[in-house]
Amino acid sequence: MRATYMYGAGDVRVVEVPDPRIQLPTDAVVRVVRACVCGSDLHPFHSLPATPEGTPMGHEFVGVVEDVGSEVSTVARGDVVIAPFAWSDGTCEFCRAGLQTSCLHGGFWAAGGIGGAQAEAVRVPFADGTLVTAPVTEDSGLLPSLLTLSDVYGTGYHAALKGGVTPGSTVTVVGDGAVGLLAVLAARRLGAEQIVLMGRHKARTDLGREFGATDVVAERGEEGIAKVRELTGGQGSPIVLEAVGHMPAYEQAFGVVRPGGVISRVGVPQYDQASVGFTSLFGPNITLTGGPAPARAYIETLMPAVLDGTVDPGRVFDHTVALDDVPEGYRAMDERTALKVLVRP
Amino acid sequence: MRATYMYGAGDVRVVEVPDPRIQLPTDAVVRVVRACVCGSDLHPFHSLPATPEGTPMGHEFVGVVEDVGSEVSTVARGDVVIAPFAWSDGTCEFCRAGLQTSCLHGGFWAAGGIGGAQAEAVRVPFADGTLVTAPVTEDSGLLPSLLTLSDVYGTGYHAALKGGVTPGSTVTVVGDGAVGLLAVLAARRLGAEQIVLMGRHKARTDLGREFGATDVVAERGEEGIAKVRELTGGQGSPIVLEAVGHMPAYEQAFGVVRPGGVISRVGVPQYDQASVGFTSLFGPNITLTGGPAPARAYIETLMPAVLDGTVDPGRVFDHTVALDDVPEGYRAMDERTALKVLVRP
Repeated sequence: MRATYMYGAGDVRVVEVPDPRIQLPTDAVVRVVRACVCGSDLHPFHSLPATPEGTPMGHEFVGVVEDVGSEVSTVARGDVVIAPFAWSDGTCEFCRAGLQTSCLHGGFWAAGGIGGAQAEAVRVPFADGTLVTAPVTEDSGLLPSLLTLSDVYGTGYHAALKGGVTPGSTVTVVGDGAVGLLAVLAARRLGAEQIVLMGRHKARTDLGREFGATDVVAERGEEGIAKVRELTGGQGSPIVLEAVGHMPAYEQAFGVVRPGGVISRVGVPQYDQASVGFTSLFGPNITLTGGPAPARAYIETLMPAVLDGTVDPGRVFDHTVALDDVPEGYRAMDERTALKVLVRP
Repeated sequence: MRATYMYGAGDVRVVEVPDPRIQLPTDAVVRVVRACVCGSDLHPFHSLPATPEGTPMGHEFVGVVEDVGSEVSTVARGDVVIAPFAWSDGTCEFCRAGLQTSCLHGGFWAAGGIGGAQAEAVRVPFADGTLVTAPVTEDSGLLPSLLTLSDVYGTGYHAALKGGVTPGSTVTVVGDGAVGLLAVLAARRLGAEQIVLMGRHKARTDLGREFGATDVVAERGEEGIAKVRELTGGQGSPIVLEAVGHMPAYEQAFGVVRPGGVISRVGVPQYDQASVGFTSLFGPNITLTGGPAPARAYIETLMPAVLDGTVDPGRVFDHTVALDDVPEGYRAMDERTALKVLVRP
């Protein structure tokens, strides 16, 4: 089959690899119907060291179950399924607690011998723990929105939940990528009253307004901080959702957060060390939370409003490519001519 | 009057200074009956740059109101009062929200022209917002325990509250100083079932056991981490209270915290940058919280159990000095021959 591999920064190719097949009785093989390129895929696109063997890519997909191992009981051949961006056994103490990204036996796609989702098919470990059946057909117009449950909508929701958004909250979202926009949608769904979106790409922030942003701040740095503080009553935003992962976004977050407030990070940090001392987090009693979303935990919660059309998170996809054109999809996202690229293998 | 000043690392002197007096109609002047030396006073004791003018010291006191300004209405001459370690107006949005350490018009003792508490008397700004009357006489045996409401018991309580301790919680406390021990007591009072205290001074950890610690781990580093993980079911402690402020304590905290757990810091961080990236906080979805305790917010909550003898947090004082002997008190705490030094001016 064909699958996307990255061989170094900027070097994405679609290559022939062996077809995936059942290896363990808890596996399923899923034919990918929709996949996509993630903002986090741009991090290796900028910095992956070159290797001859490359690394498989893609961690979001909706597909059709083609084969299941003998111990799989919750999905069957022909089911349309959603896969979260981490696979998990569904039974360990962390899975039971809804933190499947810390599953004791789980892992991430495109690593440790498991293929990536920007491919024709994927072997799914722990199919019972990992996959969720969606009551749609594989030509459903809902597939893009269902695909966001793999990662970006679940991640935006995780940001809002960990940030403590409740009815009436004032929230600032840093970043107008797909996760930032869906953090806006999630915050709105959780009842936030004021949602300030920090971003400077008008097409994106316009979609953010449709998702529920009440204010948009295009300025960055000190100017952006002053603008958010002015909009949020002078003392800053009680909840800040950081959906980028670069240091300037972290600095922006603690610039706009109110004393006693929360910074909830879901952008994968591209730094290890950051300011957490008296003058940044400690003195004003700011809480830093977040991490990779246990998207699996949220699929059942978020799916009904997608199925009944109440929300349409799939609007973040503004560009579609065939599998062979995935390299072009990376370039489009990197050059910001696309917000998020849908892949139809 | 006499007051304690520090003129550089290790250089503590009791000197003559002008008597404090009412300067604003919202001021009170309080004669200090009990003060103390704080673990955080040891940070400047190790590192304060030498200056000829010095800096006043002390931020915890119980005293008797000697004089009040014309606008003071909640305390009167002769009242025994407890002063939290930050003074605050009691009316701003942060005071009303119970975050008096971020008071818009407040500040800390021994800074900005306000004297320190290791002295005969102190001018108290915003007396109505800052002081809490205690229904005792100035020779009460409860004074040491009431004095802990100025800082160390309130700080331990803040750690436990921000850490989310509830009935049945498993908690690890890093540090066996007064704050760590009172974090144990606070966690116990909030219903924690398992409390692991990390500390290696037996007299202190013995007191920690009396305050409610169920386990004591004297080991540090990797060995200490392994021991705590073993005691807490293998995956670490869901709640960690960090009561030291040095980098090794931070590293210890994220070494023992469970994925999805909380590190609540109340030790004043002696560092600015720390690991917060994928492999430390982000990947396992760890929350970092805490800061200077709004001790003022907790005095009314914590005082009843002190007054009726249910708890005796004043047991952290194991050494008493007269005002003239405060320099010796610093040395005793620095050399760890004293846990916490009470000052009787």
